[in-house]
Amino acid sequence: MNEEQSRDGVVKPRVEARRLGLEELQALLARIFERHGTSAQVAAILAHNVAQAQGDGADSHGIFRMPGYVSTLASGWVDGRAVPVVQDVAPGFIDVDARNGFAQPAHHAARALLLEKVRTQGIALLAIRDSHHFAALWPDVEPYAREGLVALTFVNSMACVVPHGAKKALFGTNPIAFAAPRAQGDPLVFDLATSAMAHGDIQIAAREGRNVPPDHGVDSQGEPTCDPNAILQGGALLPFGGHKGSALSMMVELLAAALTGGNFSFDFSWSEHPGAQTPRTGQLLIVIDPARGGGAHFAARAEALVRAMRDAGQERMPGDRRYGRRRESLASGVALSEADFAMLKELAGD
Amino acid sequence: MNEEQSRDGVVKPRVEARRLGLEELQALLARIFERHGTSAQVAAILAHNVAQAQGDGADSHGIFRMPGYVSTLASGWVDGRAVPVVQDVAPGFIDVDARNGFAQPAHHAARALLLEKVRTQGIALLAIRDSHHFAALWPDVEPYAREGLVALTFVNSMACVVPHGAKKALFGTNPIAFAAPRAQGDPLVFDLATSAMAHGDIQIAAREGRNVPPDHGVDSQGEPTCDPNAILQGGALLPFGGHKGSALSMMVELLAAALTGGNFSFDFSWSEHPGAQTPRTGQLLIVIDPARGGGAHFAARAEALVRAMRDAGQERMPGDRRYGRRRESLASGVALSEADFAMLKELAGD
Repeated sequence: MNEEQSRDGVVKPRVEARRLGLEELQALLARIFERHGTSAQVAAILAHNVAQAQGDGADSHGIFRMPGYVSTLASGWVDGRAVPVVQDVAPGFIDVDARNGFAQPAHHAARALLLEKVRTQGIALLAIRDSHHFAALWPDVEPYAREGLVALTFVNSMACVVPHGAKKALFGTNPIAFAAPRAQGDPLVFDLATSAMAHGDIQIAAREGRNVPPDHGVDSQGEPTCDPNAILQGGALLPFGGHKGSALSMMVELLAAALTGGNFSFDFSWSEHPGAQTPRTGQLLIVIDPARGGGAHFAARAEALVRAMRDAGQERMPGDRRYGRRRESLASGVALSEADFAMLKELAGD
Repeated sequence: MNEEQSRDGVVKPRVEARRLGLEELQALLARIFERHGTSAQVAAILAHNVAQAQGDGADSHGIFRMPGYVSTLASGWVDGRAVPVVQDVAPGFIDVDARNGFAQPAHHAARALLLEKVRTQGIALLAIRDSHHFAALWPDVEPYAREGLVALTFVNSMACVVPHGAKKALFGTNPIAFAAPRAQGDPLVFDLATSAMAHGDIQIAAREGRNVPPDHGVDSQGEPTCDPNAILQGGALLPFGGHKGSALSMMVELLAAALTGGNFSFDFSWSEHPGAQTPRTGQLLIVIDPARGGGAHFAARAEALVRAMRDAGQERMPGDRRYGRRRESLASGVALSEADFAMLKELAGD
């Protein structure tokens, strides 16, 4: 395979220069994180996350993110050594103060307790606040599905989406991710921005000089545009699906920020931290044990739904493209262009 | 106000002939339900639901639904006297077998226990199976927000939506409803079909001879159409927002059916019950107490979000149109056309 179809249907050649094993890539990324000010533990968690995204073919959340992580750490905006504080506030409710650190270590610190609560309570919630989430969202839910659980998560980001009917950006791209186990095959997992396009994909379109589809963004005058640079420079994104996507984006602000105690997407400013790129907000996770009650055979039912979807003509299930790329990466390593490899080596100080 | 703008922007005159007080309307509806085979308790719950929808101006889920309820009861497809069985299966998990009855009485039977669990656990789940939901979804969540809680619910329906990339209908209109309290003013509540249009709105468009917007449905050959009759007669709806709405619709099947033990939207057939119109599926509710953890000031934060949305130019909050109509209905009764009033009197045997 030497080309790929991006989300907006543009077929582009995939420039390959070098293949790194996933572990090798992860070790290189961890060295970069540590060199730029994270603790070893934070470095390991973030390096695993970024390597996994790259290996899954998620260009907008893989090594593409590394310069942003590094410049954010250099700006002093995020604390790469933060030690999250986990509080067991109710039988089904865990509160985590990420203390201005990254969201993934905060989630990691509470994960064992969350699993214990889900198994005993049937459902449990993890509310993370004062956290920076700069990554794909599916890695946060897929592992629960692999343990037979159903997981939902919501994260808000930075004001770049104009609410339906409004005139200026207020919401973040505010993704929702969901994972559910299947009896046979990989879990059903989706990770969707409630904006018409993910912010990383707009940045990639700008970098590659491609237009974006209509109805995805507006320029600084609030006029519709297909120019990714006009969207990025003073313009804004629109929600997907009109007023419905806008309502879901509002829900994400309420769940990920108001409910956790984190910032709304419009609550913080990078102005005193030049180079900062990570949103300082919150994240909510809900995990359910379907082995309770009438849904005891959940994974078999999910498998039946997949069969029906295939019979109806849907060839690709949510997550399938990533799983395909993952198998390829596990078998023969992750393909990096020479420029990307050089960028990583430079960030690592090699 | 003597005209209204429907969801697709068509301005139509509102024909008024008679105003009934909400209680009077509810009493009339309860008589109809009882006359056609429900228990008094089920009649009271459903009559309240339908009167409330009508009073809130939700034409597609108000008295418009009454002939469908009546023909379904007459067909023997639903048990209007079913007594739901509530099981407390885990500290955060309630299982309800609706026993082929309506979803609203099943929810009602478990509501006190659900509230108790939410207050002690921080989050709780209600899984209803073998239930018929033929109503609007927001009445199921708004009352929780009025008690300071955050609620989410999912219900699947009958196969009438083609999954993204598929060729035939499989999913239901599969709505998601959400409610959250605000410090001042009515709760933020939305109720959105994951289909491009609600089924009831397609039926109303057909009845009124109006076309629907493009990209909302396909005809029996799978070709795009704006003719509501072509969509209803062998055609199908599309999900809203392309692959994202389709992923959300799949999630609703998994949560409302696989997780509860209810039918998928394609799992049942009305063929042996001519006149049946209610889907026999399941419903999931998740209720959260935001007073736990870092989000202790949830309602104040939600109010701040509303202020920011207004400042950004969004004039109407989710739920506002309904609240406006509700105030009107409470003050001066519900307007019914002469034909609708005659229909109700006939169903009541007056």
